[in-house]
Amino acid sequence: MRSLSDYQHIFQKYLDKNTFTQSPVELYEPVNYILALGGKRLRPLLVLMGCELFNSRLQKALPAAFAVEVFHNFTLLHDDIMDAAPLRRGKPTVHHKYGINTGILSGDVMLIVAYQYLTHIKPNNKVVKLLRIFNKMAQEVCDGQQLDMNFENRNDVTISEYIQMIELKTSVLVAAAFQMGALIGGATDIEAEHLYAFGRNVGIAFQIQDDILDTFGDPEKFGKKVGGDIVQNKKTYLVLKSYEIANATQKTNLEKLMHTPTTNEEEKISAVKKIFQAVNVRAEAEKVMNDYLHIAFTHIDATPLSIEKKNYLKTWAEALMERQV
Amino acid sequence: MRSLSDYQHIFQKYLDKNTFTQSPVELYEPVNYILALGGKRLRPLLVLMGCELFNSRLQKALPAAFAVEVFHNFTLLHDDIMDAAPLRRGKPTVHHKYGINTGILSGDVMLIVAYQYLTHIKPNNKVVKLLRIFNKMAQEVCDGQQLDMNFENRNDVTISEYIQMIELKTSVLVAAAFQMGALIGGATDIEAEHLYAFGRNVGIAFQIQDDILDTFGDPEKFGKKVGGDIVQNKKTYLVLKSYEIANATQKTNLEKLMHTPTTNEEEKISAVKKIFQAVNVRAEAEKVMNDYLHIAFTHIDATPLSIEKKNYLKTWAEALMERQV
Repeated sequence: MRSLSDYQHIFQKYLDKNTFTQSPVELYEPVNYILALGGKRLRPLLVLMGCELFNSRLQKALPAAFAVEVFHNFTLLHDDIMDAAPLRRGKPTVHHKYGINTGILSGDVMLIVAYQYLTHIKPNNKVVKLLRIFNKMAQEVCDGQQLDMNFENRNDVTISEYIQMIELKTSVLVAAAFQMGALIGGATDIEAEHLYAFGRNVGIAFQIQDDILDTFGDPEKFGKKVGGDIVQNKKTYLVLKSYEIANATQKTNLEKLMHTPTTNEEEKISAVKKIFQAVNVRAEAEKVMNDYLHIAFTHIDATPLSIEKKNYLKTWAEALMERQV
Repeated sequence: MRSLSDYQHIFQKYLDKNTFTQSPVELYEPVNYILALGGKRLRPLLVLMGCELFNSRLQKALPAAFAVEVFHNFTLLHDDIMDAAPLRRGKPTVHHKYGINTGILSGDVMLIVAYQYLTHIKPNNKVVKLLRIFNKMAQEVCDGQQLDMNFENRNDVTISEYIQMIELKTSVLVAAAFQMGALIGGATDIEAEHLYAFGRNVGIAFQIQDDILDTFGDPEKFGKKVGGDIVQNKKTYLVLKSYEIANATQKTNLEKLMHTPTTNEEEKISAVKKIFQAVNVRAEAEKVMNDYLHIAFTHIDATPLSIEKKNYLKTWAEALMERQV
């Protein structure tokens, strides 16, 4: 297996070679723009890794890796419109730069292009199987986005609904990326299913960790402003779990804070954090997060991969949790 | 071959059986809503017809017909957002009824669902070929929509650019529907290409006819308000061709009318119509339309289909041009 930066380098070269030069330029320039905003290319790398785990040439997996990255950016583009977000990775979002109509249509064409790259996978006989995995994942991501929007207007979201939402909205893409890569690499269906389950559980753990870091993280290391979720009254794992374990007074106080528009950010963050600390929700969240990570690792152990490869995947997951990849 | 109403009946039954019952309902109810708005189901019927032309059981073509109809309605849904259209078939558009965010996301999931149905086609070995046709068509439809949006801000659109735009925006879907149906039915690649070319040329003729009818049609028969294109300053075939053949004064007058916001609709319609009549653009448009229809028919003649089937297709095309199907 290669280093992550090697994978990144290989994928970036493919991305650069596959810049969109078609016309009308008004449609494809925004596609190039969002793809060039960068990011860690986390998801496409998993396709390449998944393929090499089974001793295949990773070149075979590049079109699928590209499809996964284009799909991911399509979801970012349309989500940014739905969230009316002005910035993405510090730059203007597509709809802010080019208008909402172009944002919608460029997103649409990205989804179609993702499917086109799936048909480039050779040999051909795996395309239908990969297509089914991709289709299921893509639909689930839409389901997750809708659930997320629904939750904004609901006050009775349960922990299990929340887990289902983050699973659909983010984990299934991580899972499918591994599974597709593994199948392209020559894995059996069962082996690829284990890779899927690994990715799915790591994805959920990652998202719970994200909620923890947003409140308790080191802003230097985390790269985001700490407390953003609190300011936005987001129903994170910490909030939902606190509702569950808090006493009546704590619950009432938290509910009141969550239903008050933020006037003084620092005060609000500190007040909510105090309740989180009083109910010890961070420890609870970390326990659950570690449970998901543990399940993820059992799926790796269930594969016939070499010890080296198993350790490679576990080290990758741990580095991901530490936000070091 | 069956009657169109037989095909319609068979397709409607399949549509009813494939209502979306998944959750979250907030995502799928709008999909059911737009699919239930009706319409002539023109495009899916072509898939069924295309299949039966080659003596195959049309049941094999139903998933692809459904994919084509869902795709078509996805484009209507997103186009209505881009056009800020309040009504579709006399009912509120999806984004007016459910909001723009749900409109975007429900459209996205429809595109994904269309791909899902393509993987249901049996036998499996044709899926990749059908997928490539579908992908190319889907991308071209987006290209056409972008060109249409670009044309709104341009004053130098040529006739050939206009033809390319209507070809991409509407004809390629008619063409691909025939081609996919034919391939599912067992046509050779060449035979299916002829069906594609037939659909493509009929589609262009249909669209030019649409421009003619919008100004010169019988409102009873046409089912639309006559003169709508003129009121909206749309750069139709009639306008672009008039620019080409008008003398300097006529051209200046037409340009002035096209660049003035409409105050009195009836006056404007009558003034533009007078220029159209003076340059005899209707006859020019009808000639070009008939040329496309003629090319369409030569592609039918080039297939090894029976005389009965060839006549069936030509009669269908003529009825379509008369707006009787």
